[in-house]
Amino acid sequence: MSRSSLAALLLGRPLANEEHAGRKVGLGTGVPTVGLGAFGSPAYGPEAALLVLAPLGAAGLSAFAAVQGVVVVVLLLLWLTFRRAIVAFPGNGGAYTIARDTLGDAGGLLAVVVLVLDYVLNVAVGISAGVAALVSAVPTLAPHRLALCLVVLAGLTLINLRGVLDAGRVFALPVYVFLASFAIVLVAGLVVVLSGNAEPLPSPAPSDPPGETSFWLAVLLAYAVACTGMTGVEAVSNSVDTFRDPAVRTARRALAAVVVVLAVFLAALAVLVPAFGVVAMPQTDAQYRSVLSGLAAAIAGQGALYYVCIGALLGVLVLSAHTSFVGLPGFFRLVAADGWLPRPFAVLGRRLVLTVGVLFLSGCAGALLGLFEGVTDRLVPLFAVAALSVFLLVQLGMTVHGLRVRRRVTSARAAARRATLLNIGVDVVGGLATGLALAVTMVAWFVQGVWILLVVAPALMGLLVAVRRYYATVDRELRDPGPLDLSDLSPPIVLVATEDRSRLTDKALAFALSVSPDVWAVHLAALEGPGSEEKERALREAWESDVEAPARAAGHRPPRLVTVGAPFRHVYAPLLDLVDRLSAQHPGRTIAVLTPEFVKQRWWQYPLHTLRARRMRSGLLAYGGARVVVMSVPWYLDDPDPERAARTTATLPSIAPVD
Amino acid sequence: MSRSSLAALLLGRPLANEEHAGRKVGLGTGVPTVGLGAFGSPAYGPEAALLVLAPLGAAGLSAFAAVQGVVVVVLLLLWLTFRRAIVAFPGNGGAYTIARDTLGDAGGLLAVVVLVLDYVLNVAVGISAGVAALVSAVPTLAPHRLALCLVVLAGLTLINLRGVLDAGRVFALPVYVFLASFAIVLVAGLVVVLSGNAEPLPSPAPSDPPGETSFWLAVLLAYAVACTGMTGVEAVSNSVDTFRDPAVRTARRALAAVVVVLAVFLAALAVLVPAFGVVAMPQTDAQYRSVLSGLAAAIAGQGALYYVCIGALLGVLVLSAHTSFVGLPGFFRLVAADGWLPRPFAVLGRRLVLTVGVLFLSGCAGALLGLFEGVTDRLVPLFAVAALSVFLLVQLGMTVHGLRVRRRVTSARAAARRATLLNIGVDVVGGLATGLALAVTMVAWFVQGVWILLVVAPALMGLLVAVRRYYATVDRELRDPGPLDLSDLSPPIVLVATEDRSRLTDKALAFALSVSPDVWAVHLAALEGPGSEEKERALREAWESDVEAPARAAGHRPPRLVTVGAPFRHVYAPLLDLVDRLSAQHPGRTIAVLTPEFVKQRWWQYPLHTLRARRMRSGLLAYGGARVVVMSVPWYLDDPDPERAARTTATLPSIAPVD
Repeated sequence: MSRSSLAALLLGRPLANEEHAGRKVGLGTGVPTVGLGAFGSPAYGPEAALLVLAPLGAAGLSAFAAVQGVVVVVLLLLWLTFRRAIVAFPGNGGAYTIARDTLGDAGGLLAVVVLVLDYVLNVAVGISAGVAALVSAVPTLAPHRLALCLVVLAGLTLINLRGVLDAGRVFALPVYVFLASFAIVLVAGLVVVLSGNAEPLPSPAPSDPPGETSFWLAVLLAYAVACTGMTGVEAVSNSVDTFRDPAVRTARRALAAVVVVLAVFLAALAVLVPAFGVVAMPQTDAQYRSVLSGLAAAIAGQGALYYVCIGALLGVLVLSAHTSFVGLPGFFRLVAADGWLPRPFAVLGRRLVLTVGVLFLSGCAGALLGLFEGVTDRLVPLFAVAALSVFLLVQLGMTVHGLRVRRRVTSARAAARRATLLNIGVDVVGGLATGLALAVTMVAWFVQGVWILLVVAPALMGLLVAVRRYYATVDRELRDPGPLDLSDLSPPIVLVATEDRSRLTDKALAFALSVSPDVWAVHLAALEGPGSEEKERALREAWESDVEAPARAAGHRPPRLVTVGAPFRHVYAPLLDLVDRLSAQHPGRTIAVLTPEFVKQRWWQYPLHTLRARRMRSGLLAYGGARVVVMSVPWYLDDPDPERAARTTATLPSIAPVD
Repeated sequence: MSRSSLAALLLGRPLANEEHAGRKVGLGTGVPTVGLGAFGSPAYGPEAALLVLAPLGAAGLSAFAAVQGVVVVVLLLLWLTFRRAIVAFPGNGGAYTIARDTLGDAGGLLAVVVLVLDYVLNVAVGISAGVAALVSAVPTLAPHRLALCLVVLAGLTLINLRGVLDAGRVFALPVYVFLASFAIVLVAGLVVVLSGNAEPLPSPAPSDPPGETSFWLAVLLAYAVACTGMTGVEAVSNSVDTFRDPAVRTARRALAAVVVVLAVFLAALAVLVPAFGVVAMPQTDAQYRSVLSGLAAAIAGQGALYYVCIGALLGVLVLSAHTSFVGLPGFFRLVAADGWLPRPFAVLGRRLVLTVGVLFLSGCAGALLGLFEGVTDRLVPLFAVAALSVFLLVQLGMTVHGLRVRRRVTSARAAARRATLLNIGVDVVGGLATGLALAVTMVAWFVQGVWILLVVAPALMGLLVAVRRYYATVDRELRDPGPLDLSDLSPPIVLVATEDRSRLTDKALAFALSVSPDVWAVHLAALEGPGSEEKERALREAWESDVEAPARAAGHRPPRLVTVGAPFRHVYAPLLDLVDRLSAQHPGRTIAVLTPEFVKQRWWQYPLHTLRARRMRSGLLAYGGARVVVMSVPWYLDDPDPERAARTTATLPSIAPVD
């Protein structure tokens, strides 16, 4: 099986650029796809808050309800901001585009870094929370938590190295099952609570009755980590392009659906968790049970519905991690197009680039999972920092955008000015709420892991800046050539590299004579070690009659034969010497080196030929300098098979971006 | 540390071709070097014979003396043949050259195969016999026989991957110690025997009193394997070139020294082994002791002299295995020069080729050691087949050579004719003796392992024939071009591949205009996926003013701008289409495709640039067909560093051949 057909089997057929436009989704497929990250968030955000509040005992449960309420309010503020962002920045960039266009290069740069961290932590947290749900349902798996996390990560990595094309429809099913099953559970729970039949589990006494200060501190910390419960809502703004026309309107409706579902979910938890007295416990406990699992069991018992809920939750969390893998290449492409990342990332369908992205994501997530032993609660503060930074950048960006809009609005239109002012108010208040949570998280969990982000982020930023600076240098060298400069059009001096005369070198000589009157045949002596003198003598003897005479007869200056020694059996060094001497004698003239090349058309021909022509070409290009041009005259044993070129084309490993 | 300086550290400085001539040896260094293989042979040949004769009991010991006597006679006949062979074929080929020049291509081919097998088995037998000597002296090592063999093999492989330059002097010392210590032991033994004081060890009664037939059969088998006791004498004829002038005379004296020492050694064993009643035992015995070790202990006791003997024997056997590693690349080079092996083998100093040879040898020897569990006696029949085949080919070849010489000698010179006849007689009688041993070994040990050679040999032969046939095809295509054909010198149509206009493409355009009036600029559209239409529009708008106008002003036909779509984001397929269309319109004209290439001068530049120019060049060369020429116009961000090219040259991995 050829390499190409193997690639086709593993990767599916390549997609032409035209097909790209056809792959748009409507609301039915779009909401589950872009909502995945958001729908998984209630599995870890509330739990993290509850764990922080655990030492407060019963008071903590009331505080939890309040904290969840605040988070829902912040989420609704964020919705209002994102609604406008989708209209103002309808591209695919989301936070990156907004920050770049409103806060300048520094903002864009910061956005790249926090988005990359967000992608990585989404993978780590999604997997660890999914495994936590699994362990809750099957407690015997508890000792293998980290191993399970890494197995899931390896599976996702493999799937994504293969490439997933039509994921949308596959995603929809588990998401709908998840939403339906939890809707049943939550509604049933609310009915029980409203009918006054809720029997709260005995809540443990506070380990240490907390003072006033530490109570409010705990609430503040709980609020900060509870904010991870709304992560994922930014996904819609990263994917406006993938919605069916009218894209902006469809995207806004999808955003509304995602936010409303999430807000209802969070609000329901605010009510039900205290009502049923569900407690959070450290994931390392042998009896660990996640909050969602505990709640589902308390309401539905451990029947079929419970297992459907947990199964669907596991699916949604793993798929939510998967969205990072799908989204990252597209994001990298956008960033590369702006010159912050290597250009190969900007070229569609470069398999290697996709692989690099997947392995980068997988490596980082694996390192984090290992470092924090696959424990969600320990990962959540880092995720909070990354996700809250993304939100804050969007809110800051939209504030700046609002101020710009306000400046354009004429003072006559008072209503419009008021509306703008109101929008700015929403952004600012939301930003303050987000900023507070961000600051609290960074300070409170600095030692426990947030410092890692503060090491990684500047390093990443430095790399991005260095890449951009390099491209700027190249651009300065190459761009804006002005009108074509044709002041010197003297033909090049052509050197034809020969070992021996053959039909191939003759073809090369004839070509050389057709482009320039100055042709030198360069015999590279001693290439085969001692004993090649004979070959040279034979070559020289036949030169006059077989080459010079026909050239003169055709009215051309005959090609001169020069011999160049190669004492170290080195291919290009002696040629470089000759080039140096010639260019000293003829300053300003281009020197074209023509290497006749036997084209290998079958794999087994490679060991049968020296790679001399190829090495010569590489060496001349690498060290020849600006005055050298390298030409390759090919020779084919069989005519090249046009079918084969076509086949290679058709099965070129190529992946359409899902962004 | 750069790749080059690392290579220099590991491999030593490269040697220029000129240095090659200076590395010649005299007798003092030459005899130990070329004699290594021969001097190790008494360690396994006699032992193998003795083991075959073991069931005969005391009668076997007398038979052993007789068998050894016959082997010495055959060795002396072989000497006479090789003496003449060195004069008649003074090159380095030995059996290969002799067989090729006298028996034709088929003979040469057969010689290649049996010499390769001989090289491989020399490694396997040398190592296993060395380990047997070690195990005899240190019996606790007995259970680790195979592991010890493989460790020694791995060590030799590593040393030889590094490359050994001045091995001659290092080799001499252990060989002289070996010869001196065993000379003392053997002379002391003979003195004891002649003085009648030998006390033979109690020889075990024959397990089963053998009949007449099986007695003679055992003797015949013993003779066949005893012949491996003279392996290694062919080495001189492979290395005539390495001796100091007069090379042939020095080589004949070295041959004489090697043969005489070996013959005396074998003859002494014929006397001493029966006299001291040393018995052979299977190497797998827990109490295993090799015959040489047993004899040395019986004569010298287990004192210092004994350990010196065994230590030197171990050294000589391992070095003898090492000679295969040193000799094989030179042999491959010779065979490759005749076109039986891939040409890269014929190029001196190709590190890769040397590596392939060493790994080939190591892999085959390792497989044999593993298959036969490192037991010398089981490997010896295979070695006998390979070595006896080499001898037989030389004897056959020299017979044919003798007949040719006889035809040339005028009938008047009766004495000369008689001498020639005598020589032919020596070759024929020797050949019959060798052939008998070969036939017996092949039949008797066919099932125990010789069949392997009969599978491997034809496969190897087929491969060699296929390689040669391929080169013949290439030669038919390329050689004898006759006078240079310049019937069509019309300039090529030059296509300049562009993505965008830049100083680099301008440089390419100017070069194109200097070699041909027909220049087309080919804009490859949609290389960056959807959205590159804008780029194209901008390019087209500026084309007239910035390119066409200056070209017209310089009196040139302006380069035309054509756009070629690349729906699959493929680099060269659309260009190939254009080439096809152009060559249909302009039959017979060469089409030169010029690719501007940004030269990467630092490793970190590679990920920062697409490899588009390189991929385009490869694709065009692979599928473009005979009418296409590919030109690369380089662009350097910094001027190339001439120092760097020079450094690369000076430390090119390179090994001088030791052949």
